Amino acid sequence: MEKNWVLTVTAQTPTNIAVIKYWGKRDEDLILPINDSISVTLDPDHLCTTTSVAVSPAFNGDRMWLNGKEVSLSGDRYQNCLRELRSRAGDVEDEQKGIKIAKKDWEKLHFHIVSYNNFPTAAGLASSAAGLACLVFSLAKLMNVKEDHSMLSAIARQGSGSACRSLYGGFVKWIMGNEKNGSDSIAVQLADEKHWDDLVIIIAVVSSRQKETSSTSGMRDTVETSMLIQHRAKEVVPKRIIQMEEAIKTRDFPAFARLACADSNQFHAVCLDTLPPIFYMNDTSHRIINCVEKWNRFEGTPQVAYTFDAGPNAVLISHNRKAATLLLQRLLFYFPPKSDADLDSYVIGDKKILQDAGIQNMNDVEALSPPPEIKDSNNLHQKFRGDVSYFICTKPGRGPAVLTDESRSLVNPETGLPK
Amino acid sequence: MEKNWVLTVTAQTPTNIAVIKYWGKRDEDLILPINDSISVTLDPDHLCTTTSVAVSPAFNGDRMWLNGKEVSLSGDRYQNCLRELRSRAGDVEDEQKGIKIAKKDWEKLHFHIVSYNNFPTAAGLASSAAGLACLVFSLAKLMNVKEDHSMLSAIARQGSGSACRSLYGGFVKWIMGNEKNGSDSIAVQLADEKHWDDLVIIIAVVSSRQKETSSTSGMRDTVETSMLIQHRAKEVVPKRIIQMEEAIKTRDFPAFARLACADSNQFHAVCLDTLPPIFYMNDTSHRIINCVEKWNRFEGTPQVAYTFDAGPNAVLISHNRKAATLLLQRLLFYFPPKSDADLDSYVIGDKKILQDAGIQNMNDVEALSPPPEIKDSNNLHQKFRGDVSYFICTKPGRGPAVLTDESRSLVNPETGLPK
Repeated sequence: MEKNWVLTVTAQTPTNIAVIKYWGKRDEDLILPINDSISVTLDPDHLCTTTSVAVSPAFNGDRMWLNGKEVSLSGDRYQNCLRELRSRAGDVEDEQKGIKIAKKDWEKLHFHIVSYNNFPTAAGLASSAAGLACLVFSLAKLMNVKEDHSMLSAIARQGSGSACRSLYGGFVKWIMGNEKNGSDSIAVQLADEKHWDDLVIIIAVVSSRQKETSSTSGMRDTVETSMLIQHRAKEVVPKRIIQMEEAIKTRDFPAFARLACADSNQFHAVCLDTLPPIFYMNDTSHRIINCVEKWNRFEGTPQVAYTFDAGPNAVLISHNRKAATLLLQRLLFYFPPKSDADLDSYVIGDKKILQDAGIQNMNDVEALSPPPEIKDSNNLHQKFRGDVSYFICTKPGRGPAVLTDESRSLVNPETGLPK
Repeated sequence: MEKNWVLTVTAQTPTNIAVIKYWGKRDEDLILPINDSISVTLDPDHLCTTTSVAVSPAFNGDRMWLNGKEVSLSGDRYQNCLRELRSRAGDVEDEQKGIKIAKKDWEKLHFHIVSYNNFPTAAGLASSAAGLACLVFSLAKLMNVKEDHSMLSAIARQGSGSACRSLYGGFVKWIMGNEKNGSDSIAVQLADEKHWDDLVIIIAVVSSRQKETSSTSGMRDTVETSMLIQHRAKEVVPKRIIQMEEAIKTRDFPAFARLACADSNQFHAVCLDTLPPIFYMNDTSHRIINCVEKWNRFEGTPQVAYTFDAGPNAVLISHNRKAATLLLQRLLFYFPPKSDADLDSYVIGDKKILQDAGIQNMNDVEALSPPPEIKDSNNLHQKFRGDVSYFICTKPGRGPAVLTDESRSLVNPETGLPK
């Protein structure tokens, strides 16, 4: 067998947003959480990681490139994933290329990993979840790991906790598990994305002047110092998990919204109860919540749920397309872009919602009238121009997939280096 | 006895800031709290209410003027206070004026109440606490109510919960009590203001664009909807009360600061855990906390404690004058006034701290160098000009006092109307 062959696999993995939050580990090394969590997988057409992995006897070491820059793989989290995968690798044969790799060979072979997010990493949109999930998924395909997605989720979990939930589409539960070695701390699919396909998601990427606390150190501080986190994990979340599973199963949007909003707020409450306190939401986040709460109360029944991760960005889940259209009108009314922005880059993703809202250009944005729920308010014309960087319109989406189209590979098939 | 006499009393009552917070009632009408709280009384020279009360057989009804405007006394809270006081009134005799009022006469006599705050009501600095305490205190003096301050505190409590803590100077505990009728829900003094006279207090009055949730409706919503408030009231606060009493008794500033900051943060955490969530702190509040936390960590031991009530204003309690000087330099570095402001109205109260800080004019403010704890930071020169309206320099202060100087009365002694 000649030494210059390169074997590659390319895959795409979605990001996910928790609607019952993961915050706090009981084991830092294995990344075992103190409570179950539930997430919605976001459509990879709008938010995903694409990763190409390559193996070749010519490679001298494991290397990785993320968004065009080489990054180190020496961290424990990467190393844990690679070790777990190598130990489960199978025999691989590519007859066309005349390549044969035996199970035992994987210990000696090295990888090149090239990864790319189709959204700004800086936007704080759980890029590490999609990234680690994609790394694990694509390497498992390359190495012919014969494990189901639940076992892969347990491996991805060791790279980045919430990554385990990106192994499935639709609605996903991360079961905290009880075993000390973490073998039962896995993700399972509650329902696929077709089960509840009315939902529409709008993400407000919020401008921030503040450097945020990393979620790893933030949740460690919370577990060590908050007087409320254990009560949350033990008394509050278990009940909410049962209620949220039921809400998803029965597509009960009012219950879904109530639980998602309450749990997002409680997650940020325990962050605030941390020493030193952690602030992820800012004034713009608060204003988005006030906008949604006011509208939901005005309508008498929730139109939209909000949830915020470890940053100021709002993820807004609308009951249906009509509600999403009305939401987008409200968001653009309160948060118009800076005058030099163009609408095409201010609302990205599924732009059809913009059409449904009757908004074709910046003049239409400026002409939006105040929503009826603030008609009696003194702050009728209070706008916060420029406080949102852009909006992404999307929906619940599918799980990881292998991309067979060679042209979408990020690796040069001859050299094994990034294209 | 002729019908045109007017008898008056004028008193001054301080405001107070809780360092272990009151949030949540177990009885809405009697204003009985779900946990004990502890406060520091603020120096009335800088923050207080002055109230003159008058009684005359010529008055046709109870009337009140607050900051120059007539306000209604018809609310239950005022009525409860007036009823409780009338039922405890004694005989009064003013030989000089030839006035005699028998105990039983008070039921038929009416009052004029004229009240004035020496600080902007809009600033959200617990004006109702000082106001109700002053109303009760001055009427009790006028009516010769023979009760100690603890009983008066129980009456003031029915006007505005935290008002009960303004009946004493120094350090005050509001005991929640157990009785259904509220008779044991009273304030007691833990130590007077001389016990710990090193402390210096700087209040940052923060500019806000948001209308805030009233504390009455806010705490009702929290009790009804937060999943964390009962755990706080029953498990967390009782331990903190014991620790805070000990910290005050032994003048243990690190313990005092740790408890005050943690409890302020937890109060805001349960507000956030409310449905709909309540945000009292804004980005400026968060930045002030970050500034203090960074500095405290840099020094290795707390220099300053922060606490926030139901609004964005920061109350910063410094260990001593030196720490207050260094704090004021930091605050003015991060939050310089708008360019057209004059320093004299930007830092008010005890201006000697400004002199100690070596700041005589706006040029000195602009020349302040970044504090050493941010020397390595990328945000070295990030300033937030105009985000603070002004600073008040003050200290722990004395309790209510009768003002015998007739010239300070707010009532015309002939007409019984506001001067």
